[in-house]
Amino acid sequence: MTFTQQLAAAWQTNNSLLCVGLDPDPAKFPAHLQGKPDAIFQFCAAIADATADLACAFKPQIAYFAARRAEDQLEALIAHIHEKHPGIPVILDAKRGDIGSTAEQYAIEAFERYQADAVTVNPYMGRDSVEPWLAYADKGVILLCRTSNPGGSDLQFQKIADPAGTTAGKVGAGGTALYELVAEKVAKEWNTTGQCALVVGATFPGEIARVREIVGDLPLLVPGIGAQGGDIEATVKAGRTADGTGLMINSSRAILYAGKGEDFATAAAAVARATRDALREALARC
Amino acid sequence: MTFTQQLAAAWQTNNSLLCVGLDPDPAKFPAHLQGKPDAIFQFCAAIADATADLACAFKPQIAYFAARRAEDQLEALIAHIHEKHPGIPVILDAKRGDIGSTAEQYAIEAFERYQADAVTVNPYMGRDSVEPWLAYADKGVILLCRTSNPGGSDLQFQKIADPAGTTAGKVGAGGTALYELVAEKVAKEWNTTGQCALVVGATFPGEIARVREIVGDLPLLVPGIGAQGGDIEATVKAGRTADGTGLMINSSRAILYAGKGEDFATAAAAVARATRDALREALARC
Repeated sequence: MTFTQQLAAAWQTNNSLLCVGLDPDPAKFPAHLQGKPDAIFQFCAAIADATADLACAFKPQIAYFAARRAEDQLEALIAHIHEKHPGIPVILDAKRGDIGSTAEQYAIEAFERYQADAVTVNPYMGRDSVEPWLAYADKGVILLCRTSNPGGSDLQFQKIADPAGTTAGKVGAGGTALYELVAEKVAKEWNTTGQCALVVGATFPGEIARVREIVGDLPLLVPGIGAQGGDIEATVKAGRTADGTGLMINSSRAILYAGKGEDFATAAAAVARATRDALREALARC
Repeated sequence: MTFTQQLAAAWQTNNSLLCVGLDPDPAKFPAHLQGKPDAIFQFCAAIADATADLACAFKPQIAYFAARRAEDQLEALIAHIHEKHPGIPVILDAKRGDIGSTAEQYAIEAFERYQADAVTVNPYMGRDSVEPWLAYADKGVILLCRTSNPGGSDLQFQKIADPAGTTAGKVGAGGTALYELVAEKVAKEWNTTGQCALVVGATFPGEIARVREIVGDLPLLVPGIGAQGGDIEATVKAGRTADGTGLMINSSRAILYAGKGEDFATAAAAVARATRDALREALARC
């Protein structure tokens, strides 16, 4: 099954737009896990087990593993999710981006070593830096478009004069921003195989709507609700597709660190359930 | 000593603009190393030992290590270079780029775990995604500006209409390209601490000259000579600073795989020496 099919199935089966972000920071782990050699795996696997029926995807952030020499625990975590929760795709949040020969190595890392179902990729180096990822026909490639951080505007919101080779200039009024050009290029030029999706931050609902207008039903990964303050109602309204899917709305810290005791996974599941429900209700009101 | 000081010292001591890229592909290793558990370390350390007096920097590309579960060999390699060749800075080519809290983790990976002296970073997510790297005051932060691959033009060469908050629009004729805006922002806004440098590909000498015009004496890391076909003479002419430095001109494959036998390191040194000499001669003709 391809990532796109897996995601569509997870949206239906769990009736959820929630992506659970796995950003494990051992300093925030409950006391009983502190100091254990596989604490990162134990923590993340417990969160995954407690939230698997509430989510449409899991998204481990590789930086948190790499900073602590825990690549083996990331491998074990993804294998665990595949074994226990085969219906839920795993997105490796790595934001890689490099020339073709190097991108091939990164694709081996993400898809062969870690067995991720999809990966996040930076578009700055252009189409040929994306193609090695697309060579894995069953995998998803999720390109950064409009990011949720304050500095996201520094480049992404620059207006492009007469965009070459696209129709992006026709979208909306007031000129075409770089993020719109990226949306246009990915949807109309790079996504020849149906494997692509885009990252669009929840902190900018107006721009989610703009991207949705440009890309049709392309899936959007939306970070920025929860700790980053994005608005659920506005995000769902702006980004949903006609069938009430199309969104992987990510929450990491608010779920992971909901509890500090031995029952941390139960506390995480409660926040995940409340978030899933809030997303459902927002969808119902659209 | 900071990365900038280390680099300036290496330029002087070795009288070389050559950066030796360490992109180890075991399929291309000599037969006597094939199958050894630490073949990647052995190969790269031998190349580093044979070229240390010919280079101003070493640049291991992390993707080649990560694709083969060889993070431990990357740690050992950088430790080896620091011990044996303390005058030559190590640039970890990782092209990371993420929101602040994640960038902090990536900075731990690059600077604390691997002990790199500098790292390559993607600017697409803007200034706050770069700041966690700059918090390491002695380290270098080398931002992608104009990359050497064909798709580099897809975004980087788009013309910006009325760039906000910069004077980049004043540079050159015919509008400001995104890569010029990145050069301007890095040199004039982000580089408050003197730690920044830029990646500008050798395949576009005219654009190296344009970047040099914008950024003054900022160091430029220039990939794309050798296997990628960039022209040494044009690159040096376009990118050198008034004192005949300012450039880290990278060559990887042409040096690494110059020989296929047990004397591979000698063959690599011969190509590195010839490249260094060609760079010197090009500089002398400027």
